[in-house]
Formats: sequence, structure tokens, C-alpha cells
Amino acid sequence: MRLGTLRLSAPGEAPMTTVVVRVDDDAAVELPGVADVGALLAAADWRERAAAAGGRRHALADVEPRAWAPPVLRPSKIVCVGLNYRHHILEMGRELPAFPTLFAKYPEALIGPFDPIVLPAHAADAVDWEGEVAVVLGAPARRLDEAAAAAAIAGYAVLNDVTMRDYQYRSAQWLQGKTFEATTPFGPWLTVADGPPTGELRTLVDGEQVQHTAVDDMVFGPAALVAYVSQILTLQPGDVIATGTPGGVGHARKPPRYLHPGHTLTTTVSGLGELRNDVVAEV
Amino acid sequence: MRLGTLRLSAPGEAPMTTVVVRVDDDAAVELPGVADVGALLAAADWRERAAAAGGRRHALADVEPRAWAPPVLRPSKIVCVGLNYRHHILEMGRELPAFPTLFAKYPEALIGPFDPIVLPAHAADAVDWEGEVAVVLGAPARRLDEAAAAAAIAGYAVLNDVTMRDYQYRSAQWLQGKTFEATTPFGPWLTVADGPPTGELRTLVDGEQVQHTAVDDMVFGPAALVAYVSQILTLQPGDVIATGTPGGVGHARKPPRYLHPGHTLTTTVSGLGELRNDVVAEV
Repeated sequence: MRLGTLRLSAPGEAPMTTVVVRVDDDAAVELPGVADVGALLAAADWRERAAAAGGRRHALADVEPRAWAPPVLRPSKIVCVGLNYRHHILEMGRELPAFPTLFAKYPEALIGPFDPIVLPAHAADAVDWEGEVAVVLGAPARRLDEAAAAAAIAGYAVLNDVTMRDYQYRSAQWLQGKTFEATTPFGPWLTVADGPPTGELRTLVDGEQVQHTAVDDMVFGPAALVAYVSQILTLQPGDVIATGTPGGVGHARKPPRYLHPGHTLTTTVSGLGELRNDVVAEV
Repeated sequence: MRLGTLRLSAPGEAPMTTVVVRVDDDAAVELPGVADVGALLAAADWRERAAAAGGRRHALADVEPRAWAPPVLRPSKIVCVGLNYRHHILEMGRELPAFPTLFAKYPEALIGPFDPIVLPAHAADAVDWEGEVAVVLGAPARRLDEAAAAAAIAGYAVLNDVTMRDYQYRSAQWLQGKTFEATTPFGPWLTVADGPPTGELRTLVDGEQVQHTAVDDMVFGPAALVAYVSQILTLQPGDVIATGTPGGVGHARKPPRYLHPGHTLTTTVSGLGELRNDVVAEV
């Protein structure tokens, strides 16, 4: 089962009206009155409610790409993970970490899966890609072991942790380069799953593959991450854990490569779908 | 004017009912139907509404300390600042930073100004104090200059960024040591102010002063911080910026000193009030 959030008004038009849809093979079926996947997941019986969705049907071919919103519009928390792909850590000659590296992103950063990435004029010089698998919580998680943590995961989506490298390295803490408003594509929908994804993640710039990994190569897999974070605080339904990016980011290349207006950034995980975002200059 | 949030039901009793109060010299006066200072600040006319508060009066002497909640129960964002006291940076032989160090704390971390700090059993060995001035936003802030940023500040409160040093240094990113559930006292109320505080901050453990600074010794003052963060994303009414701690933390002492059950942690800023938190073991 796949669950997405559709914009029923034009982007930028206020008030923005959104609705959850179950994304079937050929149509998106509304769950009337539920604004986003986050609101749906807050109900303990979200699986049954989604399965029973009986609202308006939108033929998928007729849904405008920009109609897709971030599936969870405003997660109460987005927890990001650094240095989590085994192969990449080892090829850099480092040891595997004993603990995950965690940092935050505020929900203002999120955009829909096909929204443009508008480069802020004052932070446009070193914008980089970081394709990732996003874990979405389907139940509260507090001090869980890995088995219980696995059961608290609703499913997975694709996220690109687009990063302003200049701001990221202005201080030892990465937050300010990670949380620019409206720069993190997320979606295209939540794919409900009982186990972690096993496919491949690819990031492409103008069709050229720049990142590629098997997503089961994580040092800390989805259930381990949920269990770990749940020792620190309560994860809520709709909360997101971005599980880290593999090698191939632009900043580490010689010479470095960054995103510029005119580029198209594509992020895809087999089984989870694809993000496709045009990079544009701020006007 | 001072604005606080009172718990009308016993702590832990569900559902928790809270109400905003204007804290006058001898009484707390309710603004009926407004659950916390965050909800109040979301109204553009919050100053007038607070000034006109006409609900139930509670003699201050009769208010139980544990009735005081964090003034903003759930800020949409808490942005923390590191390395921000000039005197302390210079005495460590470092240069003043060109940019603020920013990191995050999730709202689950907050507790009321007189709530106990319950040490998590698995993270009780290196718990440290960081007394700070908290800035509270009173209007949305997006790409503001310093003058406009100053006008977007509702006022100030006291916060202790209690930190699990072992978790903080498990990786290069501090988040996991900074955001343990229910460990960050905040309050006792919002003191509405047109300009930044000019008094002194003191942290005491069992009455012994362990931190002391003039709060106008910041490298990046409140308006500069709001202006800076607003270049990155939109700050919302009720959002909090914790402006950093001066020297004197326990981890930097030789030998290091930490908080243990039985301690009382007191954090006070002249003109803003006092936090007083008993440190207790988890049962």
C-alpha cells in the first residue's frame, strides 16, 4: 500500500488544501477530511482506514506532478543520520562507527517530490545532493528494542538531504547547512512495508548518475535507528528519520560539483519511487 | 509584562489542561481558553489580549511550583547556539567566531521551571549544566535585518540546556546529547521586553555558583541571532533560540563534575526569574 498527500489548491495559493490519498496502480483515492499522511498515521487504525479509502478517485495520469505534497507535511521531528553506508565508510579508510551520527532538520525544509529547488540568492554557491531513504514512523516509539522498533515503522519514502556546504561548514555543527527553507524534496509517497527496503538508491544530475548504492548496506538499519533514537526521546507517528547518504556527493569530488540553476536532480529508490526536482534561481 | 503557562491538572494526569496567565506582582491572571504562551503569541494582537486578561486570578503565593509549565509547551523549533560568550571564548585562547554555531533541540526535551530532572538510567553518568538566556519569538521572522529581528522578539526566559556529555560526544554532531526527553528546564515565564536582557546569569548546584556571566557579553546577541537564523528559514511565534552558555560547565572542570541524584540545579537571570530543579534518579 502507498499513501500520498495531494494538494487540492494550486501551490502558493492560500489556504492550501491537501488530502491523503491511497495510491493504487492507476488511481489516487482520497480519504476525505484527512489532510496529510501525518494526520492519518496519528490514528491507531490508519492501515484499516487507508485500506477502506472510498473518496474521490484521481486517475494517476491526470495528477499534475506539482500536486504531490510532501507525504507528511510537517513531521514533528526529522532526525538525520550521517556516515551510515558501510561500503562508503570503508572506502574512505575509516572504521565503522559504534554509534550513529545524528543531526536535525526542521520541517520548514521540506518540499514536494516534484517541486523546484529554489536556490536562495545568499546560499547558492555550494548546494549539494544527498540521496537518502526516509523512514516514516507509524506509531509512537519510546525505548523500544529493534523488534518493537521495526513494528513502529509505517514504511519508507525517498528524500534528498540537499545541503548548503558553505553553511554546513561555517561551524562544527552541520544544522545551518541542512535546514534551508523549502530545499529538501521528500516523497513521492509513503510505501507501507513490513521490512526495510532492499533495492538500490540512485541520484542523478541531468540524467548522469552521481550516487548509487544498495540500500541494505547501512551500518545502522531502519529498525536499529528507530530503537536508538527511541532511547533518547519519543518518536511520534509521522516523524521521519533520514537514514544517510552513500558516496558520490558533489562536495567530495575533485573539483567539487554543485547544483546550479537549470539542473534537474533525480533521486530514486527501487520500490519507493522517484523525486524529480528542477533547480532554479531565486527571482 | 510577564506571561506564563499554568497546569490546571496535576502533572502526569491526562488530559493535561493548561492556561496562559499574565504574571502580575501578586497574582497570575488567566486568559481563558488559551492553552499556552505559544498559542497566545500566534495571535498578532497578543500584547493587547494579554494586557486585557480578565480571567481567574491565582495569588502567586498559592501557586504550586510544579503548576508552572514550560511557557511555550511545544515550540515548533528550538535553535541552540554554542560558543557565544566573548569572555569565555577569549579565556580559552580561541578567536571570536565569524558565524554562530547552531544546533537543534526537539521540544520533547522541555520541562517546567520547577520540574525534577529525571536522569535516564542509561544516560545518567555525565549529565551537565548549561545555563542560558532563551529568546522567544513574538512574530514570524523571515530574512529580517537586525532592527526588524529585534521587533520580532516577544521577550526572554531562562533555560538550562542540560546535556548528556557522553551522548553529545558519541559522534561529531551534538544533537543526541542535547535532546533527551524531559531534561531541559525552561521558564519560569516569558518576560516581555523591547530590548535584550542586561543582567547576570548564574547557575548553581546545591547553592554553589558554578556559572556566572553578564548576559550582554554575547558575540551574537538576540537580534543578531534572529536575523541570522531568519536567513535560513522562517522562525514562528513561540519558537525559541537558546543563546549559549558561558564558562563553568562541569565537563570542562578537572576533575569533571556532573549532576547526580540529590542535587538541586538553580539557573537564574536577573530580571527574568529562576529555574529550580531537583535532580532525581529514574525509578
